[in-house]
Amino acid sequence: MSNPVLVEVLRGTRVESSHRGAIAIADAAGAAVLATGDVATPRFPRSAVKALQAMALVETGAADRYGLGDEELALACASHSGEPGHVAVVERMLARAGLDASALCCGTHWPISQEAAAAAARMGGASALHNNCSGKHAGFLCLACAMGIEHAGYWRPEHLVQRAVRSMLEDFTGAVLGEDRRAIDGCSVPTWAVPLENLARGFAKFGTGHGLSRERANAAARLRAACANKPWHVAGTGRFCTGIMQIFGSRVFVKTGAEGVYCGALPDEGLGIAIKCDDGASRAAQAIMAALIGRFLPMNDIERAALSTYIGPVLRNWNGFEVGVLRVTDALHPGYVTRKAPSP
Amino acid sequence: MSNPVLVEVLRGTRVESSHRGAIAIADAAGAAVLATGDVATPRFPRSAVKALQAMALVETGAADRYGLGDEELALACASHSGEPGHVAVVERMLARAGLDASALCCGTHWPISQEAAAAAARMGGASALHNNCSGKHAGFLCLACAMGIEHAGYWRPEHLVQRAVRSMLEDFTGAVLGEDRRAIDGCSVPTWAVPLENLARGFAKFGTGHGLSRERANAAARLRAACANKPWHVAGTGRFCTGIMQIFGSRVFVKTGAEGVYCGALPDEGLGIAIKCDDGASRAAQAIMAALIGRFLPMNDIERAALSTYIGPVLRNWNGFEVGVLRVTDALHPGYVTRKAPSP
Repeated sequence: MSNPVLVEVLRGTRVESSHRGAIAIADAAGAAVLATGDVATPRFPRSAVKALQAMALVETGAADRYGLGDEELALACASHSGEPGHVAVVERMLARAGLDASALCCGTHWPISQEAAAAAARMGGASALHNNCSGKHAGFLCLACAMGIEHAGYWRPEHLVQRAVRSMLEDFTGAVLGEDRRAIDGCSVPTWAVPLENLARGFAKFGTGHGLSRERANAAARLRAACANKPWHVAGTGRFCTGIMQIFGSRVFVKTGAEGVYCGALPDEGLGIAIKCDDGASRAAQAIMAALIGRFLPMNDIERAALSTYIGPVLRNWNGFEVGVLRVTDALHPGYVTRKAPSP
Repeated sequence: MSNPVLVEVLRGTRVESSHRGAIAIADAAGAAVLATGDVATPRFPRSAVKALQAMALVETGAADRYGLGDEELALACASHSGEPGHVAVVERMLARAGLDASALCCGTHWPISQEAAAAAARMGGASALHNNCSGKHAGFLCLACAMGIEHAGYWRPEHLVQRAVRSMLEDFTGAVLGEDRRAIDGCSVPTWAVPLENLARGFAKFGTGHGLSRERANAAARLRAACANKPWHVAGTGRFCTGIMQIFGSRVFVKTGAEGVYCGALPDEGLGIAIKCDDGASRAAQAIMAALIGRFLPMNDIERAALSTYIGPVLRNWNGFEVGVLRVTDALHPGYVTRKAPSP
């Protein structure tokens, strides 16, 4: 069965493009709150689970050993834009573990931010530090060094660091991650396919600590606080994750993943959210996430006005002319919910 | 009814993302050769009709007046990557009409080519010359100057240049382009919604000259020859349109448009092709176009091997590791065809 069309892209008054997808929302007890489309097939969450990939860094004491604060922990959870401030924090993390950029195995790409890319070009080019995953990789390296194990090969599935990540993902999501669930991510670490309904449960636990050991719940709370306090470090200037967490602070955790994935948590509501657009479109996954936040999180008028620009963004061309708009469809409206949403 | 899934993106052995879309192939007499999905709803072709938008430049004699050769005419049909060689030709076109970059109203964006963007950053930044549409706009400006009319406002729907474009699109496609079909393109000129079946007929005419006046058929042949002779000028280094026309020369004309559109012609086969991916994904539209060329164009083994890398491209990550592959689905296989394809 097809997933429903969740987002339409209008040019003028006509639908130019449309995006299908699936949504799971769960509470920390594991109960489904919303299930739209296919939430049972394993999907690759990609970078949307970076916070879970960073859990062992905190829980093992590695973060304390190297004195990592909010900026460093937010970077460990980040898909950053490669701006100078991001690069500086990654370098600092590596230095704390006695390493430098040569230890990073994420590969090189130009910064996501075009301004940052232009700056990098003027400075001689891009490096692995500019890779959007360099903070996560610096976190993996800090973990390996604190564990006193060889850090080379930290990205391989058989390395203790990646085995710890796999085990953490299983504990949070309840999914059994056999070898058939594994593929290679853009930055070369394993990515594990997990059904959206399990990802939603995992992020409900991450947002609330329910169902986790005390140490694990404390580590999750520390990562959430780091991202809430330093949202610019989780993404960057003008980015969705940054903008949303700047509006709502610790009341919302959101994280993008490649190929149209978003995961998030509304801690005070006890909810975890997982979204995947069939076609891999981030623009659609963002609008869906914003619409779900607008529906399930109580907020004031100022917050609602700020959020609305993410739910139905106006599309402008290179001259700044308004050419169209994104809109979420009725498939996101009541009727699809299995538990009543709170009154706005 | 939903359009079928035409392309799947695999990570490891799992489908990570999928793309739906519609395809129309027609002959120059207007007969449908293939119709997959919804080919009747008007869709914005965007830059895929740049060759038709450039027709008046040649047919009116403006191209001759300013001595425009293959490079300039290919640029007038191009969505170029903003490489130095592209910018130089656009500057030359403008100079022939006594203008400079300040006359361009396409807006500014960083070059599509990341190498070219880095080069532009080192040279002080991007300009309207780097906009992928600057060649088309230079063509519009040459047309206005040759017509002896005010060139300012050449991008507005009421300007004679855009009225000529609209009339040309109607003649080729047979679609009636009322005001309800108009929206604003990324470069600010009008984009007119046309059903895929009409676009396919239009490109069958463009590829063969059948059903056109002698002057119009000659102008179409000249634009096709310019693109076949100078395929790098139509797109750029590593780009699909360039690569395909480098392989097949004058036997294939292809042109990308934003939001997952491709138009093309197989002149010797008498066929026109129009593709639109529902979600706007170029990666999918490219694979579909390559698969259709592989099916409908007779070719030798060397050509077939070169084409295969476009039909099923291997996906690599930032370290160059193979992480997945794109594949076209059975919806592109026989059974959907209304006229028998030639034997391979």
